[in-house]
Amino acid sequence: MGLLGLSPAGLAVAARLAGRDAPPSLELTHICDRRAREKRARQPESPASSQLTWTDRFDDLLTSDVDVIVEAVGGTEPVLDYLRAALLTGKSVVTVNTQVVAHHGPALLALAERQGRQLRFGAAVGGAMPIVRAVADGLAGERFTRIDAILNGTTNAVLSRMEASGCDIDTAIAEACANGYAEADPATDLDGMDAAAKLAILCGLVFGVRVRPDVVDARPTSGTKPGDLRDASQRGGTIRQIAHATFDEPRGVLVAWVAPTFVPSGSLFARTTGPQNAAVLTGAYGGTVTLTGVGAGSEAMAVAVVSDLVTIARDRAAVVPAPILRDPAAVQGWRNLKLAEAV
Amino acid sequence: MGLLGLSPAGLAVAARLAGRDAPPSLELTHICDRRAREKRARQPESPASSQLTWTDRFDDLLTSDVDVIVEAVGGTEPVLDYLRAALLTGKSVVTVNTQVVAHHGPALLALAERQGRQLRFGAAVGGAMPIVRAVADGLAGERFTRIDAILNGTTNAVLSRMEASGCDIDTAIAEACANGYAEADPATDLDGMDAAAKLAILCGLVFGVRVRPDVVDARPTSGTKPGDLRDASQRGGTIRQIAHATFDEPRGVLVAWVAPTFVPSGSLFARTTGPQNAAVLTGAYGGTVTLTGVGAGSEAMAVAVVSDLVTIARDRAAVVPAPILRDPAAVQGWRNLKLAEAV
Repeated sequence: MGLLGLSPAGLAVAARLAGRDAPPSLELTHICDRRAREKRARQPESPASSQLTWTDRFDDLLTSDVDVIVEAVGGTEPVLDYLRAALLTGKSVVTVNTQVVAHHGPALLALAERQGRQLRFGAAVGGAMPIVRAVADGLAGERFTRIDAILNGTTNAVLSRMEASGCDIDTAIAEACANGYAEADPATDLDGMDAAAKLAILCGLVFGVRVRPDVVDARPTSGTKPGDLRDASQRGGTIRQIAHATFDEPRGVLVAWVAPTFVPSGSLFARTTGPQNAAVLTGAYGGTVTLTGVGAGSEAMAVAVVSDLVTIARDRAAVVPAPILRDPAAVQGWRNLKLAEAV
Repeated sequence: MGLLGLSPAGLAVAARLAGRDAPPSLELTHICDRRAREKRARQPESPASSQLTWTDRFDDLLTSDVDVIVEAVGGTEPVLDYLRAALLTGKSVVTVNTQVVAHHGPALLALAERQGRQLRFGAAVGGAMPIVRAVADGLAGERFTRIDAILNGTTNAVLSRMEASGCDIDTAIAEACANGYAEADPATDLDGMDAAAKLAILCGLVFGVRVRPDVVDARPTSGTKPGDLRDASQRGGTIRQIAHATFDEPRGVLVAWVAPTFVPSGSLFARTTGPQNAAVLTGAYGGTVTLTGVGAGSEAMAVAVVSDLVTIARDRAAVVPAPILRDPAAVQGWRNLKLAEAV
């Protein structure tokens, strides 16, 4: 397999595939990065690394014999072209790229199905919280009506740090950066756009509706102040960035928003601290299902990527039908959750 | 597809497949039950039911054109022979049967792989809590070191009822029966054998070790008295039937037990009430993952079965490699968890 983008997540994947728990079916042979020469010079020499082909040209990866490409570049352009080209060349793709999947997932999944290849993206939603597989496969027989979730580990690390220490948001962001849970500029985390993109992906998987991420009503968490958390504490709770969606299937009405939200002390979401993600899914038949797991940081991303790689390696000829999505009749934004409704 | 065993779970599956949310790819054509004639007479007439072939002979199901058999009979004998015969005849199998999977899962999965067919058993562990798929697929790239879980929804409904009402265990069992969470004789639930079998299955999926269910140290919950719950409450917690396992991979030492256990108030397990299951999985790379969901009752079983059926229908030629299991060097039983360790 080949790795596109030696980002922190990409580096963690490469380390896992060279480490003691590397699945025997997976062999990393190619690394493609814009700054391949410079990054290669920084890597320690090892028996595994001497077998690696490094390149700064994506075409070298395309024309190589790798059967799977892991995309860990980030950004939508030119990554979308890369992923399309990879699938068209007959390679399967594992991506950590939330924005590409949110904007182009349905088209890419349809292309993958036509090509008889796979596009997997567990790292793009939930990280080490296995919500993509749990919902898309393990609960394919449920009809879900509601999602409540913490989907951005960076923002959660920031908010729970402010809650614990009383510090301001910039101090908490600096700490999250130091711990590897935040990029240098976590703007798309705190403004809700990352969680909105993840929620849009989940609405496709969970409700079977097509949602552009920009129609999800995203309200920023960046304005949250130490005093807001103190007020919440006095009211018996705290603040979390919650992604919420309901789908009224007969009427076709989707409600979808991301916003800083009061959650009661002792609730699952208040107990979700640091870079953890959490999701509560309400089903028409089986009741409520919850999941939690680490949602940010390169180790969590690597767990999700390696899990997807193992799945592909188990059955390289697997047929993964692209989900059939319907357009919602209407999309509604934020409304205040009543206390009892905040999980 | 064909249904073997019109148990409460079997009936719920049949109802889902005839209901408004029936996945279009699934058609129930045959029902096989020892008392087919009598049970058929009790079913309401409907357009769907008039298309059904009923039989009391398993051979009729084997020689029919169904490509998947759902087994909802219960018990290991003669069900094991049925499942073997189904796979040998080229049919895939979805089973709710915890004991058969715990005792014969590895052999049946190997047979399924050789036959190019699938054996799926999400209902056998977790019910609507999608732990089988989340762990076996979604987290195939993690190396887990510890499992703590509530795996028997019936016992959990009984204990949480005793906790809430102060009633004795027989009253709580009678209520669980009335709510459809317990069979008339819930002995294998309360004595820990059902949870031990589920834990043995999880040890295979999560640690890759082969564990016979009877080597799991199962200690009965049936002796728990109202006074035990009052004592636990005074110590700041409550009692749950916990299934616990750790695997020390370098030394090959497995610890595995099921026992009534003190859990602190506010912990995930104390918050798990009624027929819910819960699982906390500790991984070497991605940290802690938790799942909860309804683990008992025919609706939850039907969600798991239909999810497995959808998975099979999506890719009838899928290759599902049987897991490669190692024998543990030693298996150890119960030891008292320290307060801080009880999740």
